[in-house]
Amino acid sequence: MLKEYLKASKAWTESYLASLLESPNAEYAKLYESMRYSLLMGGKRIRPILTKAVMESLGVSPEPYKEIVCAIELIHTYSLVHDDLPAMDNDDYRRGSLTNHKVYGDGLAILAGDGLLTYAFQLMCQNKVATPSQQLQCVLALAKAAGPEGMVGGQAFDLESEGRHIPLEELQVLHRGKTGALFLAAIEIGLILSKATPEVQASYRTYGDQLGLLFQITDDILDVTGTIEDLGKMPGSDEKQDKSTYVSELGEKGARTKANETAKAAKVALANVDGDTTILEALVDYLVHRTN
Amino acid sequence: MLKEYLKASKAWTESYLASLLESPNAEYAKLYESMRYSLLMGGKRIRPILTKAVMESLGVSPEPYKEIVCAIELIHTYSLVHDDLPAMDNDDYRRGSLTNHKVYGDGLAILAGDGLLTYAFQLMCQNKVATPSQQLQCVLALAKAAGPEGMVGGQAFDLESEGRHIPLEELQVLHRGKTGALFLAAIEIGLILSKATPEVQASYRTYGDQLGLLFQITDDILDVTGTIEDLGKMPGSDEKQDKSTYVSELGEKGARTKANETAKAAKVALANVDGDTTILEALVDYLVHRTN
Repeated sequence: MLKEYLKASKAWTESYLASLLESPNAEYAKLYESMRYSLLMGGKRIRPILTKAVMESLGVSPEPYKEIVCAIELIHTYSLVHDDLPAMDNDDYRRGSLTNHKVYGDGLAILAGDGLLTYAFQLMCQNKVATPSQQLQCVLALAKAAGPEGMVGGQAFDLESEGRHIPLEELQVLHRGKTGALFLAAIEIGLILSKATPEVQASYRTYGDQLGLLFQITDDILDVTGTIEDLGKMPGSDEKQDKSTYVSELGEKGARTKANETAKAAKVALANVDGDTTILEALVDYLVHRTN
Repeated sequence: MLKEYLKASKAWTESYLASLLESPNAEYAKLYESMRYSLLMGGKRIRPILTKAVMESLGVSPEPYKEIVCAIELIHTYSLVHDDLPAMDNDDYRRGSLTNHKVYGDGLAILAGDGLLTYAFQLMCQNKVATPSQQLQCVLALAKAAGPEGMVGGQAFDLESEGRHIPLEELQVLHRGKTGALFLAAIEIGLILSKATPEVQASYRTYGDQLGLLFQITDDILDVTGTIEDLGKMPGSDEKQDKSTYVSELGEKGARTKANETAKAAKVALANVDGDTTILEALVDYLVHRTN
């Protein structure tokens, strides 16, 4: 059942994303092409799907709020484009295709990232159904999560820590910024658009915290156990770069134990919620068993 | 009189900017340091001053709206940090100091730019005085101006056009994006916060269009006639890079004529406005005669 849900939700997200970013003139056409290249390269679309699933679990249709629900995927895409640059992770492949800068050059890749990031906020403001107050709360949640207090902070700390063995406590700060903040924002946006009560919000936030952590632990495990076919990129890049990961800190078995504990905590958080949280719980299992 | 106004407004802007961007933890300290390095490097602060001057000309105090008025300077700063990167203009100096990437490395400079850009939107949402609807309009105006339809589009077109001689018409598209859009947004934001009527808005927008153009023409002239002391960077970089400019297209004298015509059009646009537009008109003359 989850498999069909994910497939349908991914298709829902991607058909909307494909309708975006048409160049307003011939002069900017190359920039728009490069933005679309990375935005439509595929991927799990897990962040907008998470927002969608939160809304549906609380009985609210995401359909009228597409701009706001899908904007987070533009932010995620921009972060990958910049992360792949030679000055950062220096990756040639992403999802089985050449990375943005390998196709368009470093300069345009930087600008494509800048463009995707900025356009995400434009898109959120252009929804006509949410109240201005809801929209503003969503923009704020996304900006805080994506910016220096969140994802950019985590990325910078990651960059600074390369080649240094960092203790588990710092690793958690790193990932709470780098991955967790955006996962949490996906949930927050769903809660804002669903007008959830503070009590419900607290339960979902705990779920979101654990889900983000789980995503990162399984990411680290996949970098050791995954195949190039499944991942669409070379495994083993963390070890090559001598990066601290949950696997390097806890061992593969320890990391799996941590993943299972985290998965359990995520499910427990939703135990007392009134709505239908079947999909959100199945998402946890999906992350535990994912192969890419 | 304008000189004192600019000095006081610059001080007003900079004392607010200096209060921003304290790192929330030790792990992100380097990122925040690099963002502050570029944000507090000086500069004319012309964009927030423009918003401030528009509001004051319409009888509205900018003081309660500092977050919204000053956010544009974070966007401008991010654009310089990314523009200076080796993959873009490859500049070592800016305002007489080393550029961000020369101090912090290319990776952190990319992230500092990303952080400044994202934080600008967070900041705008954090103002407590404007209505949600006003705030949302301001975020939208800034995102449109800064994003792929505006500044990022212009930058990308500029990058694509390097070494190619582009005709005057395309040059105007380029600069309307690269410089003009953000100038216009500075004015729009002032109009939104002042609740200006559509008629007043139209006059100010024409003024803003011409002012942005004037800024670019005088920028091109300064690249030929300016000194390293005044500019804080090497003049002649446009010619070195074989860039099309108003000077290369019209000659120095032709560019000066164009600057004077544009200045006149900017002033004419404000002729029938009710408010006190003395400062806004003086700003036009200031741009015509600027040495940096």
